[in-house]
Amino acid sequence: MIGAGKAGFELDPRLERDTAPVLWLGLCELRLMDDRRWPWLILVPQRPGAVEIHDLTPLDQTMLTFEANTVSEALSQVTGCHKINTGALGNVVSQLHFHVVARNENDPNWPGPVWGYGQREPYRREDLHGFIEKIRARLS
Amino acid sequence: MIGAGKAGFELDPRLERDTAPVLWLGLCELRLMDDRRWPWLILVPQRPGAVEIHDLTPLDQTMLTFEANTVSEALSQVTGCHKINTGALGNVVSQLHFHVVARNENDPNWPGPVWGYGQREPYRREDLHGFIEKIRARLS
Repeated sequence: MIGAGKAGFELDPRLERDTAPVLWLGLCELRLMDDRRWPWLILVPQRPGAVEIHDLTPLDQTMLTFEANTVSEALSQVTGCHKINTGALGNVVSQLHFHVVARNENDPNWPGPVWGYGQREPYRREDLHGFIEKIRARLS
Repeated sequence: MIGAGKAGFELDPRLERDTAPVLWLGLCELRLMDDRRWPWLILVPQRPGAVEIHDLTPLDQTMLTFEANTVSEALSQVTGCHKINTGALGNVVSQLHFHVVARNENDPNWPGPVWGYGQREPYRREDLHGFIEKIRARLS
């Protein structure tokens, strides 16, 4: 599933800063939010200018669904979490990106949402790399 | 697009209490959150026991995507909103349900999420019915 980026696609600099690369899927670049409070993956469709899911072509909508659900199931299996939360907000970073977050009943903002809650807490480098390797192994 | 409910499907009583019926789509029951703070639609796949999107069959995942994006585009057109937010959380009500929310830069919790923010503010009855009619007209 690893492939090259799409022509003309550039990752938003805030997404670049707050996340680390995991894999390139068929449509999306898959990244890990560098926030150890929650196992939190982000899919970014490699389509320049995309903002809303409903503005993607039907084929891209279907691809995003397939990739997001594959990632969601993998994250659920790797973490053994209680619940997956998914969402596409884009109120701060308008570049279309899709969140897949593993939630547990004792996590920092349960049962509230992860978005907009407190401050990001970066992983230690070895923990970041270890978690990315687990996700890659499950998806490969 | 109006059809009967699916055999064995029962709407969660909290969703029943907090929302009003709009339409039955092919897979989902479409409902309006009775909260005038945000134009907020909810799609509930009529599949008994469904909790996670990735546990739906691939066909149902695709149907949900198609219905959610049709609803998302309609809500965007009816409201002229700045941004659509979508999400599937299920941390409080586990029955699978998919949120489609119209957001604007001056709304109560912009750019934060709608979930878990403040108290629901019910519509006046005539406003509720009027808004539901607008959504129905756009989707029919």
